[in-house]
Amino acid sequence: MRDQRKIEDIQLDFLVSALSDGRFISTEKVLNWLQEQNETVVNNVQPIPLKDLEGWHMANDMLCHASGKFFSIEGIRIHTNYRNTPEWDQPIINQPEIGFLGFITKKFNGVLHFLAQAKIEPGNLNVVQLSPTLQATRSNYTRVHGGTRPNYLEYFNGEKPVQVLVDQLQSEQGARFLHKRNRNIIVEVDEHEDVPMLPNFVWVSLKQIKELLWYPNVVNMDTRTVISCIRYGSYSEQTLHLLNALNPQANLTHKNSYIYSVLSEQNHYHELETIIHWITALKFKYEMEVQSIGLSQTRNWIYDGNTIHHEKNKYFDVIGVRCEIGNREVHTWCQPMVRSAQEGIMAFIVKKINGIYHFLVQAKLEAGNFDVVELAPTVQCLTGNYRKGENEYTIPYIDEVLNAPKEKIWYTCYQSEEGGRFYKEQNLNMIVEVGDEFPLEVDENYCWMTLNQMLSFVTYNNYLNIAARSLLSAISLQ
Amino acid sequence: MRDQRKIEDIQLDFLVSALSDGRFISTEKVLNWLQEQNETVVNNVQPIPLKDLEGWHMANDMLCHASGKFFSIEGIRIHTNYRNTPEWDQPIINQPEIGFLGFITKKFNGVLHFLAQAKIEPGNLNVVQLSPTLQATRSNYTRVHGGTRPNYLEYFNGEKPVQVLVDQLQSEQGARFLHKRNRNIIVEVDEHEDVPMLPNFVWVSLKQIKELLWYPNVVNMDTRTVISCIRYGSYSEQTLHLLNALNPQANLTHKNSYIYSVLSEQNHYHELETIIHWITALKFKYEMEVQSIGLSQTRNWIYDGNTIHHEKNKYFDVIGVRCEIGNREVHTWCQPMVRSAQEGIMAFIVKKINGIYHFLVQAKLEAGNFDVVELAPTVQCLTGNYRKGENEYTIPYIDEVLNAPKEKIWYTCYQSEEGGRFYKEQNLNMIVEVGDEFPLEVDENYCWMTLNQMLSFVTYNNYLNIAARSLLSAISLQ
Repeated sequence: MRDQRKIEDIQLDFLVSALSDGRFISTEKVLNWLQEQNETVVNNVQPIPLKDLEGWHMANDMLCHASGKFFSIEGIRIHTNYRNTPEWDQPIINQPEIGFLGFITKKFNGVLHFLAQAKIEPGNLNVVQLSPTLQATRSNYTRVHGGTRPNYLEYFNGEKPVQVLVDQLQSEQGARFLHKRNRNIIVEVDEHEDVPMLPNFVWVSLKQIKELLWYPNVVNMDTRTVISCIRYGSYSEQTLHLLNALNPQANLTHKNSYIYSVLSEQNHYHELETIIHWITALKFKYEMEVQSIGLSQTRNWIYDGNTIHHEKNKYFDVIGVRCEIGNREVHTWCQPMVRSAQEGIMAFIVKKINGIYHFLVQAKLEAGNFDVVELAPTVQCLTGNYRKGENEYTIPYIDEVLNAPKEKIWYTCYQSEEGGRFYKEQNLNMIVEVGDEFPLEVDENYCWMTLNQMLSFVTYNNYLNIAARSLLSAISLQ
Repeated sequence: MRDQRKIEDIQLDFLVSALSDGRFISTEKVLNWLQEQNETVVNNVQPIPLKDLEGWHMANDMLCHASGKFFSIEGIRIHTNYRNTPEWDQPIINQPEIGFLGFITKKFNGVLHFLAQAKIEPGNLNVVQLSPTLQATRSNYTRVHGGTRPNYLEYFNGEKPVQVLVDQLQSEQGARFLHKRNRNIIVEVDEHEDVPMLPNFVWVSLKQIKELLWYPNVVNMDTRTVISCIRYGSYSEQTLHLLNALNPQANLTHKNSYIYSVLSEQNHYHELETIIHWITALKFKYEMEVQSIGLSQTRNWIYDGNTIHHEKNKYFDVIGVRCEIGNREVHTWCQPMVRSAQEGIMAFIVKKINGIYHFLVQAKLEAGNFDVVELAPTVQCLTGNYRKGENEYTIPYIDEVLNAPKEKIWYTCYQSEEGGRFYKEQNLNMIVEVGDEFPLEVDENYCWMTLNQMLSFVTYNNYLNIAARSLLSAISLQ
C-alpha cells in the first residue's frame, strides 16, 4: 500500500483550493460553458408507462431488468419505534453494487484543481450538471461485463500512479435506496504529469465549485457528496500565515475571523465521546425492522401499469422513462425513475457557541439506512407536506428555518438529487444562523457539533447522510 | 444531554487506573475470592438432545423459543469473492436485540476502580468469571416484559446521576452471530457517593483486570470487550510527570520508555486517511451476499434431533443444555449453545516501526459481519484445523506466531468466549513481537496500525472485531 503525503499538507492544499480562484476559466465562464454543452447535447427523455419499459418487467413481485443487472424496485415493510409512525410499507430502490464517484485533482500554480465533467443524466434539471471526473458502477469499474471503458478509469484502478487524498464509503438517500453506498474518492496527479483533456471536462478550483453551488441545479449531487468528504484541518496561526502568503486577497488577520470560527478545534460544546454516547443511546433506543415484501403487498401503494404511486399521491412515485441522450454518441434506453411528489427542504441551523460555529445535527431514521439512524440536517423533510400543514408529525425547528431573517441566511439554493435515479427532483438547501435567543438545550434527537466534528464522522464513513453532506459541501470557508 | 468531563482528564484517569494496584483487595485475593464464589454456587449444566429442550422447537425451519424471545438458530447461505471459498452454508445465532455491557467506576484515592461481578454462565470454563457490573439484554434493561430488575440498573438508565466515560456499540463474533452488537458502557459515580456492595461484586483497578488476564478463563469476554474501548490518550511529557507523581513506583523516565512506544501519536507508519483508503478499497472489492435459508436447507450440515453439526464434524455444532445455576437463588432452564469443534488462535504480530509499536491488523470477512469486513487480529482461525495442516487455505503469518521465540511473546493465555452462548470455548490469545527481518510490506488484506490508531477505530464503533478487541484488552501499559 502506497502511503499518502502528510495529512496536514493535504488538508492545507484543500483549504488553499477552497480560497483560490481557478486558473483556467472564470466561474461565470464555467456557467456559459455548461450552457454551451447544453445546447450541443441530445436530451430527449419521455415518461412512458412502466408496463411499456423495454427490458424491464415484473418478476418475483419486483420491477427488474431482464438481465438481472442495474437495479430493481422492491417493496419493504418497516416496523419501528421511531417517532409516531410505527409501521409503513414503501417501494425502494435496491442496487446492491457500490458506485464509484471520483475526482482527479492536480496542482496548477500551487492550487489544487478538480477535473470536472459536464454530464447529462435523464433526470437532470438543467440537463448538463457539473459532475465528478468518473461516475461508474462497480461493474463498469472492474469491467467484469466488458462494455465501454469509462474515461479516466486508469487514474482510479491502479494503472497510473496517483496519490489518494480521500477514499470513503458514503450512503445514498435512505428513504429511497436500500443500503446503497458509493465510494467517494479524490486522487492527485503529479504536477508534472499531463492529463489528457476531453472536450466535456474542465479544471476548476474548490472555491469555484462552491461558487457554482450558489446557482440552482448546476453542481450535481455526486460532486457535492465527494467534496463534502474533504477535511481542511484545524485553525492555527501557522495556517493563517500560509493562507495569507498564498492568497493575499483573502486577508485573514485575526482570531475572530470567520475561518477561525468555522475551523477551530477548540471550544466545542460537546466532547467527541459525548457525541458518540448520544448516537449509541439512540441506536440502542430505536428499533427498525425492514422486511422484504412483494410490490403487490405494499399497503397504500398502487401499481396500475403506468406508475407505482401512493394512493393519496403522497411521497413519490416510480415512473418509466425512455431516454435518448448523448453528445457525440447518442444512447437510447428505458428505465424506471423515482419522481418526488413535491420538493423538500434540508437545512442546518448554525449557532455560535463559545465563539465557534456549531451545527444542529439530527439523528434521523430512514428505511434504507445501513445502521438505524444517520446524522442528518436539523430539518430534512424530503417528501413532507410541510407547506400545507398536513404532516403526520410536526417537524421540529422548521419555523426557525422558514422564518429566518434574510441577513441570517448563510446559504439558500435549490439543489438536485442524483439525475440517474431521480426525475427532476430538487430540494431547497439552506443554512441559517440563529442567535442567543435559540436555546442550547435541544430535543434528544438533536446535537450541536462543529464543522470539524462533523467531518471526523464523515471520515469514518456512513455517519452523515447525503442531505447533511450536500449542505456541508456548500459551506464557504471565507 | 449532560456533557462529560474533558476527554484528556478521563483518559488520564484510565491510564492511572491501568498503572495502579487496587485499594481493596490484591489480585491474588481476587483469584481466591473467585475460587470461593465457585465453591458456593450451584452449577449443573448437562448436554441434552436439542429435540428434548424444554421451551425450544423447530418452527419455520429454525430453532427458536416458544415465546419468540431470546434468540434463534437459523441457516444462512453466503456468496462471496473473499479468499477461495466462494459459497457456503452455515447455522448462525440470530439475536436481534442489542445487549448491554456496563461497568460502574468510582475513584478511590484518586484511582478509578471498576465494580466487577463474579458471574456464572452455563458455558463458562472456571464456572465463575469476572464480569461487568451489568450484563443485560435490551428487554431486561428497558423492562418491557417486567421480570426481575437487574442489579445496579439505576446507574445506567438515567435514574442516578453519572458521568458516561465510554458508550459504544461493538460487534460480537461475526462467524457465529448475525449482525449482533452490544452496547459497551462505562459510567463514573461521584467520589462522595456510596455505591451499595452486593456479595458477589468487587472493586478492582484496571491494572488488576489486566493482571487477571494472565490467568486462563478468569476474565469473561464481556469485561474484555468493555475495557478494550478505553482510550488512554497520547504520550506527552506532561502525562509522564503526572503518572510519576501519582504512581512513583512506575518510575517512567525517558522518551524511550515502553509507554511512549505504545501511546505516541507521532511517527505512525500510515496516516489515518491511508488506513481508511485501505478499508474502503477492500469493502469495495469484497462482495458478500447473505441469504436467509431454512436450517434443513443448509448443505453439509445435519440436524439429527440431538445436535446440529457439520457432516465432517468441522467448525462447530449446536447442542442443547439443561442448566441449573445460581448462588442464593437457583435458576433452571434449557437452551441451545454453540460448541466449537476445537480451540482456535487469535494473535497480533507487533513490530517497532519508527520507534513506535505497530500492530499488524487484518481485514477479515465473516458471515455475520455488519459491514463486509472488520478489523481482526493478524491471525484468527477460531475454527480452523491449523494444527493438522488440513486448512482450506493457508493462514498467513501463522508460523511467525506459533514459532515465536519465548522472549518475543508479549502475551499468551487461553481466554473464553462468552459463556451465555458458547459452550466451554477457549481460544489462545497471543501478542508476539517480530524484529527487523519481518517485512514492512504486507499482503493487501493487512495493515500496520498503532494502538492509538486502533483505538480511534474502536471509538467510531463497529470496526474492530471482538477477537481484536479481546487482544487489545490484554495489552499492558507498563
